[in-house]
Amino acid sequence: MPALRSWLNIPKGSHFSLANIPFGIISTPLSPKPRVAIAIGDQALDLDIFAANNGFSALSIIQPHQHVFSEPTLNAFAALGRPIHSVVRKYIQDIFLENTPHPDVLKNNAALQTAALVPLDNVKNHIPFHIGDYTDFFVGLNHAFNAGQMFRGPMLALNPNYKHLPVGYHGRASSVVVSGTPIRRPSGQFLENPAAEVKKPIFSASRKLDFELELGAFVCKNTKMGEPIPVDEADQSIFGVVMMNDWSARDIQAWEYVPLGPFNAKNFGTSVSPWVVLYEALEPFLVKGLENDQDILPYMKSERNETVPDIKLRVDIESSSGTKGTICETSGKNLLFSFPQMLAHHTVGGCPFKVGDLLGSGTISGTTPDSLGCLLEATQNGKLSMKLSEGDERTFLHDGDEVIFTGVCGSDEDALVGFGQCRGKIEPALSFPF
Amino acid sequence: MPALRSWLNIPKGSHFSLANIPFGIISTPLSPKPRVAIAIGDQALDLDIFAANNGFSALSIIQPHQHVFSEPTLNAFAALGRPIHSVVRKYIQDIFLENTPHPDVLKNNAALQTAALVPLDNVKNHIPFHIGDYTDFFVGLNHAFNAGQMFRGPMLALNPNYKHLPVGYHGRASSVVVSGTPIRRPSGQFLENPAAEVKKPIFSASRKLDFELELGAFVCKNTKMGEPIPVDEADQSIFGVVMMNDWSARDIQAWEYVPLGPFNAKNFGTSVSPWVVLYEALEPFLVKGLENDQDILPYMKSERNETVPDIKLRVDIESSSGTKGTICETSGKNLLFSFPQMLAHHTVGGCPFKVGDLLGSGTISGTTPDSLGCLLEATQNGKLSMKLSEGDERTFLHDGDEVIFTGVCGSDEDALVGFGQCRGKIEPALSFPF
Repeated sequence: MPALRSWLNIPKGSHFSLANIPFGIISTPLSPKPRVAIAIGDQALDLDIFAANNGFSALSIIQPHQHVFSEPTLNAFAALGRPIHSVVRKYIQDIFLENTPHPDVLKNNAALQTAALVPLDNVKNHIPFHIGDYTDFFVGLNHAFNAGQMFRGPMLALNPNYKHLPVGYHGRASSVVVSGTPIRRPSGQFLENPAAEVKKPIFSASRKLDFELELGAFVCKNTKMGEPIPVDEADQSIFGVVMMNDWSARDIQAWEYVPLGPFNAKNFGTSVSPWVVLYEALEPFLVKGLENDQDILPYMKSERNETVPDIKLRVDIESSSGTKGTICETSGKNLLFSFPQMLAHHTVGGCPFKVGDLLGSGTISGTTPDSLGCLLEATQNGKLSMKLSEGDERTFLHDGDEVIFTGVCGSDEDALVGFGQCRGKIEPALSFPF
Repeated sequence: MPALRSWLNIPKGSHFSLANIPFGIISTPLSPKPRVAIAIGDQALDLDIFAANNGFSALSIIQPHQHVFSEPTLNAFAALGRPIHSVVRKYIQDIFLENTPHPDVLKNNAALQTAALVPLDNVKNHIPFHIGDYTDFFVGLNHAFNAGQMFRGPMLALNPNYKHLPVGYHGRASSVVVSGTPIRRPSGQFLENPAAEVKKPIFSASRKLDFELELGAFVCKNTKMGEPIPVDEADQSIFGVVMMNDWSARDIQAWEYVPLGPFNAKNFGTSVSPWVVLYEALEPFLVKGLENDQDILPYMKSERNETVPDIKLRVDIESSSGTKGTICETSGKNLLFSFPQMLAHHTVGGCPFKVGDLLGSGTISGTTPDSLGCLLEATQNGKLSMKLSEGDERTFLHDGDEVIFTGVCGSDEDALVGFGQCRGKIEPALSFPF
């Protein structure tokens, strides 16, 4: 399909082509109230202003619901359901088409363009959803294998349950923040020498601060306690997808995680990219996930074969001195289970969901050394180092390092479906006593 | 101190004496909007109606904030901070005193008594807080030892980290429900024969459904990401305490929990008692916790010695056929770490808190067979059985069983500080396909 052409100047290579139309929450210096917008090319279209100025005049179905665009989160819009998201996305595409059927709405309305289109450089992004619960899965098979192999060898790398269910744990919703929010290096307790016979922890700033390259999916349907979501209905519960950095303190994690899982090693911050790509916009890029050699149970068997997104993902680190290097290039398809499968498993015992709940995929890694989604894997827990530039190497993150994820689907430079970036910069730890 | 005497008839042995004044959310058949109330004797005092009828006329400090009593959760009231909770509690105590300094407010105001006092039997209780995040700890040392011993023997029962930090995990906030809410038996995957060499799970309704006797603490202070709460300031973040039943499916848990912790085994339901006992009301019952033979790190060392509540706790099970038996009697003091220590540890790496966040203690057990806080321990994972009555025994819970927690502090029958009950009845599993 040839790329859709717009009357708006959408630069070649933009993540936010007409094929995308991702949703987010913005504010501007002159109008600091967070509200709903979409990204297109280098601009945000402020849907609060757009709606208030009859932008949706040709879309009667949305008119009783226009207040959702004035909300400080996407929860109310998301709750309208995927059929409505689809209609709104299609309408906004139509509005920006070169041969738009509604030229008077925006194309020939210079006043509304001035009021509602804001350069992305001038907007502040906010967390897109009020997140009720955040769950982090571990379905990046290559990551699970690499990490398991490091600690238990290749034969025992994967636990017996691994291929039968999407392993996951409940994360901390309060520490999920939008891209650009500084991340303070956590302090905590850990073993200075894990091999020593006496297991006596020290208290210190983490010395093994890491990123984790993940995808996140936001939920758009409430479900009741006790009511499972069948796997082939689960995609109707998925609003859209973001990139997610599940920052991790590996030393704190190693000491605390037995037997109840990661805790303070993860709850000091999780960053998400600001523009949520609708699940519908990802549909053309869904492919088959990683092969599972186990016969999974019927409640997770899907009628669909293509269920995981083929997103080109890249991780760069930029140091405070300006050196910069690419740490990882991989694809979002490196998953053993899809988001619909995660949701079907998560709810099979009756766990209820709310609009805005967030599912993380777990770290996404390829199989080659340049495709590993965290430093734990890339440096084999600090044994090797990664080169940012000549003379500037990393085992784990330094203060002042900024970690930058980039993600994009497609190859037609005029029709990319991209995620923009997910960024976070490390601030020094507080000193104790606080 | 002799018990305070009231003009209201407060039955001897009531959990809700003048020494208590617990807060909750109620509605009534004639007024279905959930709102704030306190419990006293056999009555609830509807604070929405009380405030609207000048009940707080003699308490000027609360007047700008009276809207908090019309809210459907305690979040807004809790956010006012502990000094305000204290003043309000003291004022309500004064109002009900036999020799109240404010007789015209309620004692001599029959119309307001009729409007604002509702028999507890006529009120419906609602979940007291909107819960942002729920964390479940594991600091019941006896429980941790008993459970660990069962799977790893007495020498390895406790993991090396256990006495150095309050081990905990993030729970599922969306499935926390108020006492009385039915709990559906979860289905999920588990090993029918965990000892078999081939680890191939089945899908089934859980066969090892269990309760867990816990205490929960609700948080009343927002903190920012990156800002730890010092241990000796942490009690100012604790609004009050409830009993909590962290329902658990032991077969699902055993299969899924390695390496990231319990997930579907816990997220199908967690029940809390409806009346939140203010932390201030518990102060006289705080005692020294269990001895810790490890020297804990400075950030968790408290200036106080008495930090855990000596609450007499009891668990009864009543079957659908009406047989009933007491399963456990123990005390809330069987904890290795206090709620302030849990909070200090939880935030030491910078994890932010919101008003309404919930901390669970973990299962509370004594050391004798009649003091064990879950069936996993009491029946040694189903090897033994517990007698409800002649000919009616339990290894794990049956459909139709109602589990009833009761908790109370003190021995003066006129001055008890009680929690009432936390109840939950098991409904049969759904059959698959759903």
